[in-house]
Amino acid sequence: MTRRVAIAGVGISKFGELWEQSIRDITLEAGMLCIFDSGIRGGDIDAICIGNMSAGRFTGQEHLGALAADMGGLGNVPSYSVEAACASGGAAVRQAYMAIRSGEHDAMMVLGMEKMSDVTQTEAMNTMSVASDWEWEGLGGATFPALYAFMARRHMYEYGTTEEQLSLVTVKNHANAAHNPYAQFQRPVPLEVVMKSGFIADPLRVLHSSPISDGAAGLVMCSEEKARELTDTPVFIEASTQASDTLALHDRKSITRMDSVVISSREALKKAGLKIDDIGVIELHDSFTISEIMQMEDIGIAKKGEGGKAVEEGITQIGGNSPVNTSGGLKARGHPIGATGVAQIVELVYQLRGEAEGRQVEGVEKGMAVNIGGTGATSIVHILGR
Amino acid sequence: MTRRVAIAGVGISKFGELWEQSIRDITLEAGMLCIFDSGIRGGDIDAICIGNMSAGRFTGQEHLGALAADMGGLGNVPSYSVEAACASGGAAVRQAYMAIRSGEHDAMMVLGMEKMSDVTQTEAMNTMSVASDWEWEGLGGATFPALYAFMARRHMYEYGTTEEQLSLVTVKNHANAAHNPYAQFQRPVPLEVVMKSGFIADPLRVLHSSPISDGAAGLVMCSEEKARELTDTPVFIEASTQASDTLALHDRKSITRMDSVVISSREALKKAGLKIDDIGVIELHDSFTISEIMQMEDIGIAKKGEGGKAVEEGITQIGGNSPVNTSGGLKARGHPIGATGVAQIVELVYQLRGEAEGRQVEGVEKGMAVNIGGTGATSIVHILGR
Repeated sequence: MTRRVAIAGVGISKFGELWEQSIRDITLEAGMLCIFDSGIRGGDIDAICIGNMSAGRFTGQEHLGALAADMGGLGNVPSYSVEAACASGGAAVRQAYMAIRSGEHDAMMVLGMEKMSDVTQTEAMNTMSVASDWEWEGLGGATFPALYAFMARRHMYEYGTTEEQLSLVTVKNHANAAHNPYAQFQRPVPLEVVMKSGFIADPLRVLHSSPISDGAAGLVMCSEEKARELTDTPVFIEASTQASDTLALHDRKSITRMDSVVISSREALKKAGLKIDDIGVIELHDSFTISEIMQMEDIGIAKKGEGGKAVEEGITQIGGNSPVNTSGGLKARGHPIGATGVAQIVELVYQLRGEAEGRQVEGVEKGMAVNIGGTGATSIVHILGR
Repeated sequence: MTRRVAIAGVGISKFGELWEQSIRDITLEAGMLCIFDSGIRGGDIDAICIGNMSAGRFTGQEHLGALAADMGGLGNVPSYSVEAACASGGAAVRQAYMAIRSGEHDAMMVLGMEKMSDVTQTEAMNTMSVASDWEWEGLGGATFPALYAFMARRHMYEYGTTEEQLSLVTVKNHANAAHNPYAQFQRPVPLEVVMKSGFIADPLRVLHSSPISDGAAGLVMCSEEKARELTDTPVFIEASTQASDTLALHDRKSITRMDSVVISSREALKKAGLKIDDIGVIELHDSFTISEIMQMEDIGIAKKGEGGKAVEEGITQIGGNSPVNTSGGLKARGHPIGATGVAQIVELVYQLRGEAEGRQVEGVEKGMAVNIGGTGATSIVHILGR
C-alpha cells in the first residue's frame, strides 16, 4: 500500500516585475513562507525539489537546488531542479509526490521560481522559445504568441469562437486577481479595453497574453503521517498525472485540442475516482486566453468547440459551475515560468482551506490544476482534496 | 516493502567533439541503443527522465523531455528533465529510481546528454559557471579551473600532494580509456607529457582537466519483475543517495574535503549493507584530477591526505584494490555535463555484466558511482550490484 501525500504548508511571493529582488531573494521568501505556514522545523525537511525553466539564461545561475539548500540553511539535504518548460513547477510537485510515495523522503520543500525581467524583452522572448521545437519553430521566428495565434485562428475558423470570447477570459481573470494580493495585475479591465489593446500576433492582443513576470511559490509536502503532526488542515494530492505530445505544433492531428491535456486530465480523474463535475475549483494554464478555452474543452467542462460559449455563459466565473483561475491565472496573477505550476497548487490549497478571501469559492472539496509546457507538448495534472 | 529497481539495458554514444551530430541525434542514438540492449518494446516504456544541465544555453533547446518522447516515437509518455549541475545525470537516475519505487512507473528510459561544442569556448566556460555560485564566484571571474586550483593548492599545502600525483591520475585514466571505444581520448599519455602541458590555473594543467565534450548515455530502468522478463543479467541499484554542500567554496569548513561526498557515500554503503572494500569498481567524478584524489579520501579508499600517495601505489589501477574510472573517467572518456552521471552507470553495468573488454575488472560484484555538481555542492552516489 503506497502512502498518501499531503501538502502541509504553502507560500508565495508577490508576482510582478521585481526590480529590487534577485532570484535568491524570491526563492528565500517563498521558502520561508511555506515553512512558516506549515510549522515544520527546517531540520525536518529532508529534500528540496525546484521547478525552474531557464535560470541559466535569465539570471546566469543554475544549480538552484544546492543554492536553495545553502541559502535556506537546510544543510546537506538532497536538492535538485526539474524542467519541463512552462510545466516545470508542476513537474517539481510531481517529482516530490513520487519521492515521498517511494518512501525515500518524508517531508520535502518544493519551490518554483523564475526571474525573467533581468534580461531584455528580446532575450526573454528568445529564452521562452527554447521551450518550443527550436529547429522547426523558434529558429524560424515562430514565437509562442505566433504559435498560439495559429491555434486561436483555427479555433475561430472551426468553431466560430469570437474575439469577444477570447477577451472575456481576460476580463474574468483580472476580476479574480483584484482579490488576490500576490497577483501581478490587481485591477479589473473592461471588455472594451481588452478588445482595443494592440495585436501581438493577430488575432491575439496584448491583453490576451500572460506577462513576463518574476516570482516564486513554495510548498511543504509530506507523508500523511507527518502532515497530520503539523496541521489540522492537510490538503491531499489525490492524483498526479502527466502526458506528452509532439514538441512542434505542425506534427499534431489537431491544433485546436491538446491531447496531452485530454489524456492527463482523464487519467487524473480516474485515479482519484472522480468526475469532472466533482471538481469545485480549477486552475488552467492560460498563457494565452485561447489556451484556457481549449483546456476547458480538453478537461470536459465544455463540449468540444463550445469553450468560448461557455465563457460567455459564465460557467468559469466564481459562482459558476466550474470556477477557473480564481487566482487570476497566468494572465493576471502573472507567469514566472517555473513558479506557475507551484502557484496553481498554492491557490488550490488556499481555496480548499477556505482562505481565499474575496475570491473564495464556497464549499469546495476538490480542486484541479492543469500546468502545460510549450503549446501542450507537456501537460501535468494534479487533483487535490481536503 | 518497496520494490527493487534494476537496469535492464544501457547505451552510449561516442563522446567527443561531434560536429556532425546535433543534440537530437545523440539523444536518439543513446535512446535507441539502450532500448535495443534491453530488448524492451518501445510501448512498454512508461516515462522518460532526462539529465541535462544547460541545453537552453548550449543549443537553444530545452523541453528535452517532450523532445525525446517525440523523436523516439514513444507517444504520450510523461517526460521531464532534471538539473543538478554536473550531477544532472546522476540526479536523473535517482529520480527514475524513486519513480519506479513509488509504483508510479514500471519501466523508464533515463537519458543524459549535453552538446557543448556548438558555442565558443568563452560561452562554454560562462555556461559552466552557472553551476558555481554566480554572484560570489562566476561573476568575479572564478571559473571552475580556478576554483579547483584553490582546492589543489590547499591539498598540496596541507598534505604534501605533488604535481606528479595529480598527473598520475591522468596517466591512469587515459590508459583505461585506450580500451574504451566510446571515450573521447583513446590513447595513453606519458607522465612527462602531462607534467609539461600548459597551466590552465596553477597548479592545474590542461591535462589535469576534463575536456569540453558532446555525448549522450541511456539506461532502461525497471522494476525487478519487469527486468527479469527482459534479461538474464539485470543489474540492481542497491543504494541511491544524495547530499548537498554550500554552493560557494569559501563558505565551507574545509576545501580539501567534499562533505557532500562523505555523507552520500557513507549513507549509500549503509543502505546497501556494504563496506567500501566490498566495492570492486568505482567511477569517481574527476572533473579535475585533484577531484579524484579528494574523492578517494572522501569515500574511504584512502586515508585523509593520502589520496595522492594511494594513486602512486596503484590502488586505483585495474588490478589494484579499488579500481577507479575504468572508463577513462571525465578526464579521458569526456565530460558532456548532463551525460556524465548516466555514463558512469553505463560503465558500471558493463563491468558488472563482464562486458568491459580490455578494461574489465575480474570478478566484480559491486560498483559505486560518485557524480558531483559544481565544486561538490551536490553529490549523488549509486551502488550497483548484480
